[in-house]
Amino acid sequence: MAILLSNEEVQALLTMEDTLRVVEDAYRELGEGTAVNRPRSDLYSRTNLPDAFHVFKTMEGTLPSHHVVALRIDSNVVRWREVGGKLRKEGVPVAAGNRYLGLVLLFSTENGELLAIMPDGYLQRMRVGATNALAAKHLARADASRVGLLGSGWQAGAQLMALALVRPLREVRVYSPNAEHRESFAREMTATLGLPVIPAAEPSVAVADADILASATNSLAPVIDPGWVRRGQFVTCVKHAELGTGVLARCDKTFINARRANPETYLPGHGHVDVHDPVEYLMPGASPSGGGRGGEPDWAAYPELQELVGGAAAGRGSEAEVTCFINNIGLGIQFSAVAAAIYEAAVRKGAGRQIPTEWFLQSEHP
Amino acid sequence: MAILLSNEEVQALLTMEDTLRVVEDAYRELGEGTAVNRPRSDLYSRTNLPDAFHVFKTMEGTLPSHHVVALRIDSNVVRWREVGGKLRKEGVPVAAGNRYLGLVLLFSTENGELLAIMPDGYLQRMRVGATNALAAKHLARADASRVGLLGSGWQAGAQLMALALVRPLREVRVYSPNAEHRESFAREMTATLGLPVIPAAEPSVAVADADILASATNSLAPVIDPGWVRRGQFVTCVKHAELGTGVLARCDKTFINARRANPETYLPGHGHVDVHDPVEYLMPGASPSGGGRGGEPDWAAYPELQELVGGAAAGRGSEAEVTCFINNIGLGIQFSAVAAAIYEAAVRKGAGRQIPTEWFLQSEHP
Repeated sequence: MAILLSNEEVQALLTMEDTLRVVEDAYRELGEGTAVNRPRSDLYSRTNLPDAFHVFKTMEGTLPSHHVVALRIDSNVVRWREVGGKLRKEGVPVAAGNRYLGLVLLFSTENGELLAIMPDGYLQRMRVGATNALAAKHLARADASRVGLLGSGWQAGAQLMALALVRPLREVRVYSPNAEHRESFAREMTATLGLPVIPAAEPSVAVADADILASATNSLAPVIDPGWVRRGQFVTCVKHAELGTGVLARCDKTFINARRANPETYLPGHGHVDVHDPVEYLMPGASPSGGGRGGEPDWAAYPELQELVGGAAAGRGSEAEVTCFINNIGLGIQFSAVAAAIYEAAVRKGAGRQIPTEWFLQSEHP
Repeated sequence: MAILLSNEEVQALLTMEDTLRVVEDAYRELGEGTAVNRPRSDLYSRTNLPDAFHVFKTMEGTLPSHHVVALRIDSNVVRWREVGGKLRKEGVPVAAGNRYLGLVLLFSTENGELLAIMPDGYLQRMRVGATNALAAKHLARADASRVGLLGSGWQAGAQLMALALVRPLREVRVYSPNAEHRESFAREMTATLGLPVIPAAEPSVAVADADILASATNSLAPVIDPGWVRRGQFVTCVKHAELGTGVLARCDKTFINARRANPETYLPGHGHVDVHDPVEYLMPGASPSGGGRGGEPDWAAYPELQELVGGAAAGRGSEAEVTCFINNIGLGIQFSAVAAAIYEAAVRKGAGRQIPTEWFLQSEHP
């Protein structure tokens, strides 16, 4: 039987402890060369709306220790909208019920069978939280106990849950421009983590004296003032734009997720192009200053997290070093690891909707 | 509702006429740049068996005229076996019921939803037959009426069905080393096509005086003697190895499916490598002369079928020219075209198993 799961079921099955463990194993296997990753590809098509495009995003990875390969598929309509003078790419919920399509398909590498189909919404945030915490495990000071957090969304919560598993946290201060959000986030996370999570009215107050400076916002512009970075700190974010070159320049040692930082992007009328955000190709009239990430560092010059986890690259060298991890693009093997953990838990607990395996098999050799 | 189909249902829904029409449209759109194709990728993993490997093959294409993107997924175990002194890669039917997994997932580019899941076995042969016949439409002489066919398997049947739609066929002669096979094939195809299909005991007899010389075998070594090639002929095959360089040298004008002739191959221990068959990497002890295609032409030097269909490249230039088409690697848009035709027919006829669209949607933006 293949198992079909909902986000609610995934949430009930997946602990952050498990996520962190399987993600660490996956990076180690990737570093050893046994796990294999196909970089993300993005195929764009025009739609019936002049300013909306369909993007078909896939990535995959094999994880031999769990005998699985996972394929992540996002099939959604996107639109670029100007926000604060910058173009921002936004998903448009045009599927039935104003929803999105994001799936992870898990297959057995022993017999090829489809094992599970699950939505990627919940697990994709868990894997980001776990990945950043995995970096913290190798890069933050061993006694790091104070977190300064920017952002109070779901991603911010995942960051804290994961960081609390790798360092002896004693206090978190959180800033978000919306007072109500940061206060309710602080209340909830205080209860979840069992340690004081304190709302701060100013970002500089949130990050003062922090051992770990974590940004988990949806901002496309830098949110960290380089002046906030302290000796011995570990800095992390959920996307590069939050940091800016000023912060990067303050870091002694920076790791990234992948040197191949752009997806394989395929566009109508242009074929294969090497860009992360193709707005300049698809909407040539759009503001040339918007769209692209602009001012991207030369990612090829940075070491990858898999080298750190596998021991090929050295982590923190001294108490005073400023270390940094940038989750610059997702990897298929992150999904393989987390989907395998979810599937194994679902089998143990009999969770999910059972679908006959035979529906997806054939006698014909393809 | 998403529709789940079996190979039997696909067969009942898909005519060769429709296949040919949609494949031609797809190549035209690809030539115009509106359709977009992601080249095939192959991810290999080791299995519990020392000489068997799992290969996860995906390719995809967007087809704006049908508002779809199709993703083909093959998840199977393969093994290299020595046949006649050469290593041959074979699928091993290790899924439940000794079966294989090969699927096409069709998505809407208007709202992102999953429209259909269908096996790729039947449609994949129809798309090969239709693609070669599409080439014949542009490259065979207008009065081509005699086919010399090598091979009597299912693929050979698809070739004839498709060729009969583009040229005024009057006679087919077929050779296969197994007398019983070629005779039953001849009987069946005579009935199907309504024209004489005559078994030949020698390949040279089958191909004598042929206007179209078609090979549809599973041989990895050349099956056509260069001396059989006649002026004015159109030569085609289902894989390059059937031709050999001697035949290629006799052809005045040769088109291929794609200049990017190798899949994006990812291997444990090697990462991304630019080979079609990675046996030399995975089984270093294997005969170095086997495995790889060996003596591959420089595909980058050949024009593609999309250029011919779109009019960017000239087809047959004279009655005397020898023309050739080599289906050197599959394209995602072939699957998009054929899967779209199948889906549209299934909707019209209410065929297949209905699966709630909501099972594959989520409120969370991925």
